[in-house]
Amino acid sequence: MDYKYLLTALSLSPLASLANDGPATDAPPAGEQKRPNIILFLVDDMGWQDTSLPFWTQKTPYNEMYETPNMERLAGQGMMFTQAYACNISSATRCSLITGANNARHRVTNWTLERDKTTDRKSETMDLPDWNYNGVSQVEGISNTYVGTSFVDLLRRSGYHTIHCGKAHWGAIDTPAENPTHWGFEVNIAGHAAGGLASYLSERNYGHTRDGKPTSLMSIPGLEDYWGTGTFATEALTREAVKALDKAKKYNQPFFLYMAHYAIHVPLDKDMRFFPKYVRKGLSDKDAAYASLIEGMDKSLGDLMDWLEKNGEADNTVFLFMSDNGGLAAEPYWRDGVPHTQNAPLNSGKGSLYEGGIREPMIVRWPGVVKPGSRCDKYVMIEDFYPTLLEMAGVEKYETTGPVDGVSFMPLLKGTGDPSEGRALVWNFPNIWGNDGPGINLNCAIRKDDWKLVYYYETGRKELFNITEDISEKRNVAEAHPDVVRRLSKELGQYLRKVDAQRPAFKATGKLCPWPDEV
Amino acid sequence: MDYKYLLTALSLSPLASLANDGPATDAPPAGEQKRPNIILFLVDDMGWQDTSLPFWTQKTPYNEMYETPNMERLAGQGMMFTQAYACNISSATRCSLITGANNARHRVTNWTLERDKTTDRKSETMDLPDWNYNGVSQVEGISNTYVGTSFVDLLRRSGYHTIHCGKAHWGAIDTPAENPTHWGFEVNIAGHAAGGLASYLSERNYGHTRDGKPTSLMSIPGLEDYWGTGTFATEALTREAVKALDKAKKYNQPFFLYMAHYAIHVPLDKDMRFFPKYVRKGLSDKDAAYASLIEGMDKSLGDLMDWLEKNGEADNTVFLFMSDNGGLAAEPYWRDGVPHTQNAPLNSGKGSLYEGGIREPMIVRWPGVVKPGSRCDKYVMIEDFYPTLLEMAGVEKYETTGPVDGVSFMPLLKGTGDPSEGRALVWNFPNIWGNDGPGINLNCAIRKDDWKLVYYYETGRKELFNITEDISEKRNVAEAHPDVVRRLSKELGQYLRKVDAQRPAFKATGKLCPWPDEV
Repeated sequence: MDYKYLLTALSLSPLASLANDGPATDAPPAGEQKRPNIILFLVDDMGWQDTSLPFWTQKTPYNEMYETPNMERLAGQGMMFTQAYACNISSATRCSLITGANNARHRVTNWTLERDKTTDRKSETMDLPDWNYNGVSQVEGISNTYVGTSFVDLLRRSGYHTIHCGKAHWGAIDTPAENPTHWGFEVNIAGHAAGGLASYLSERNYGHTRDGKPTSLMSIPGLEDYWGTGTFATEALTREAVKALDKAKKYNQPFFLYMAHYAIHVPLDKDMRFFPKYVRKGLSDKDAAYASLIEGMDKSLGDLMDWLEKNGEADNTVFLFMSDNGGLAAEPYWRDGVPHTQNAPLNSGKGSLYEGGIREPMIVRWPGVVKPGSRCDKYVMIEDFYPTLLEMAGVEKYETTGPVDGVSFMPLLKGTGDPSEGRALVWNFPNIWGNDGPGINLNCAIRKDDWKLVYYYETGRKELFNITEDISEKRNVAEAHPDVVRRLSKELGQYLRKVDAQRPAFKATGKLCPWPDEV
Repeated sequence: MDYKYLLTALSLSPLASLANDGPATDAPPAGEQKRPNIILFLVDDMGWQDTSLPFWTQKTPYNEMYETPNMERLAGQGMMFTQAYACNISSATRCSLITGANNARHRVTNWTLERDKTTDRKSETMDLPDWNYNGVSQVEGISNTYVGTSFVDLLRRSGYHTIHCGKAHWGAIDTPAENPTHWGFEVNIAGHAAGGLASYLSERNYGHTRDGKPTSLMSIPGLEDYWGTGTFATEALTREAVKALDKAKKYNQPFFLYMAHYAIHVPLDKDMRFFPKYVRKGLSDKDAAYASLIEGMDKSLGDLMDWLEKNGEADNTVFLFMSDNGGLAAEPYWRDGVPHTQNAPLNSGKGSLYEGGIREPMIVRWPGVVKPGSRCDKYVMIEDFYPTLLEMAGVEKYETTGPVDGVSFMPLLKGTGDPSEGRALVWNFPNIWGNDGPGINLNCAIRKDDWKLVYYYETGRKELFNITEDISEKRNVAEAHPDVVRRLSKELGQYLRKVDAQRPAFKATGKLCPWPDEV
């Protein structure tokens, strides 16, 4: 094991501690307040505007187009976060979530699938870094892997019953971390190495032949009971999650449900429970399919909320809603409309460090703690879930193999403080995704206060946006504010070096690209 | 959580420690010796003589009847233990194994299945204690449950990949501990709450209808791929275990495989790969079925040994063979021959505190550490596996919720000492099993040096045997050795009170039965 991060973890997070004078199960002493159940509902590839719930200051045409009544219901009972960030790519986000590390540190910056295989598109001019394409893990032993401690394991060890449902995507195939049980989940429904799915359709056995053989590395495992039954994958996962909750209810433990839908990742199959309605509304087939996937996801959200209410658990359950990166906007094969506009007013989409790729719809419901119908405009980051969820669970002392970069957003929930004050958020993407587009590939970025700086490794180009005034990142004001550019470049460069981040190199010279504060 | 046992654990076991100054994963620092894989091969209801490998000083007719070439092979490469003890009942043994606690302490003294239901047969004269019929758990929250720390969880947290295959039987249905993943197993093949099986036959889908509905609480889960394929359950489990080992090999972690066969528990289905041979040898149908189950289990043992050799892991793997209680001898419906004789020279069988119920065939193979073809006549107890396996894995510092009663038998393996010197072993069975017979029901026992005292709660009767001279426990020498009876009664009574053991009460008076040193 690598001990070197322990002190760092301690110094960065007031929650981390080397001392552990309790028993192996770090539960609070009996008699303390009952610990809440926690449901983290994570949607895949859902954009900031893919909902009827307006996260912007005004309602957009997308808010009119999509129907997500249960997101509205959840927001009415909780707090909406209008500046919640994830990474630009699923693996990066999920690895930050499970380890609490920023993506520049854990180096799982592009998407993972097969062991020892990079998924970067090749470049004629640039050598890409040897990033962690095997994902994250709790154990040493596999190359190109970041080793961290799972907050789920900490929850489990503190007495939580832990349930995984849906997409896992933490470790490449044939690495220990491919199985959600490696991360401390006691129940695994349909999770494995893949970050996508072969099919939502039970008619296709979610990507299996009639004989049960997978047709793809992305065939969904574990849903055999629903093959050929006409059950859309989103629904099948929801029913399995409800079964797991029924069981959890009997266990008399607090539970943590990680409801990580495969929806609304491609293939954009039609969820026929909702598709016809959107066609009647005049949407194109592609748009209607997309809208049907969203409403199917929203129905699942409602089903889980219903379960809590019916079972008397609503008041004692924290419910968090989040997405893992921006909506897909770079692939005309799947999406109608002008490419890179489908997250408007945000620019670009999945894969981009522009807001369209990283700003997410986030809601937190917590009766008695979070004010119903409230709204928070402070920024938070995906790795912040790590310390926050542990704090919610009353797990105050824990050890981690690597440092926790996330900062608890509990003060925002309680209205007792602003942890984003003076804080910078950082993204690193020294990779090349499968698609091109605005803000996509070979870049890094920093957000601080109103400002965001995006730096492109290959060209040395720097873009500065005032996010508060220009949410669409249409006006690069770098020339007008050289001081801000200098300041943010320095902070970004220092952070990237501090966490031992990676950067590409020029094929022509073999030299590494400069850090943002070196040009 | 209950902190009170921590200091006790510390004082009882030199391995337990409150201090934990390493990271969450307690792996030894890099550069230390490679940690061995560990396979614990636990057979169900297998008696001491149910093998062609002679564990006694002489070969018995049973050794001639049964054929277990792979046990002979394993013993030839390792150490046979001729006085290895378990409890008289499966649940008690398995709960001691997983928590390290003696059965008098954990109070899972009879067998478990359904939540909040005792399995004791009722008595006209005795009130039975409210024992832990919900089993053991790692968390609080369920009544009638002993809370302990799983050594498997400690292995996992130290970096081991952990695989469960077969019978689990730790927690009753609908308790958290029913699922092997609760105990720290990352892979669960076919394990659940039940301690038995509906059927070994794939033709019966191991106890499921054609529609896949379980026909019993003991239907084996998770073997759907083998339904209708003509694969005996023992073989199906073995093939799944081999698949899990193939996967484990890729993970580059040491692995722990808990191969806990359902064999040779009733129903005594015929394993047709071996049954005809035994019929030809002249055995009755029942005897031949029993022998076929044993040889099927032995074939599985050989398959795992073959896997290790083919995969270059034999030299770096500790292989332990054990059974969970004595052979079934109290049920003429299943067994031919005179009841209670089928473990001869041992008296009685499963359920009994006589040797036939508790003495087990045990073998340990560990190249480079354990002398091949060696034999150890010192006694060891089922809870001793707990500290021993952790010591084998190099896990030196760990915390446990309850005390570890087991004592490492590493000195016996290495030939460096005798931990059984001056040690007493204790069993408690204040219950009534489904069957009667010699040494069965409402008793407790102590073994020390050559002596064994059995005390019967209802009658106050005490039996003293010199096990070394009278392995068949035919000669009660209590009257001839009142001093020994007094000494052992005192030690037994003191131990039972110390661990807060349970005892029955008389219905007539409502009074608890006296402890053995009170009469």
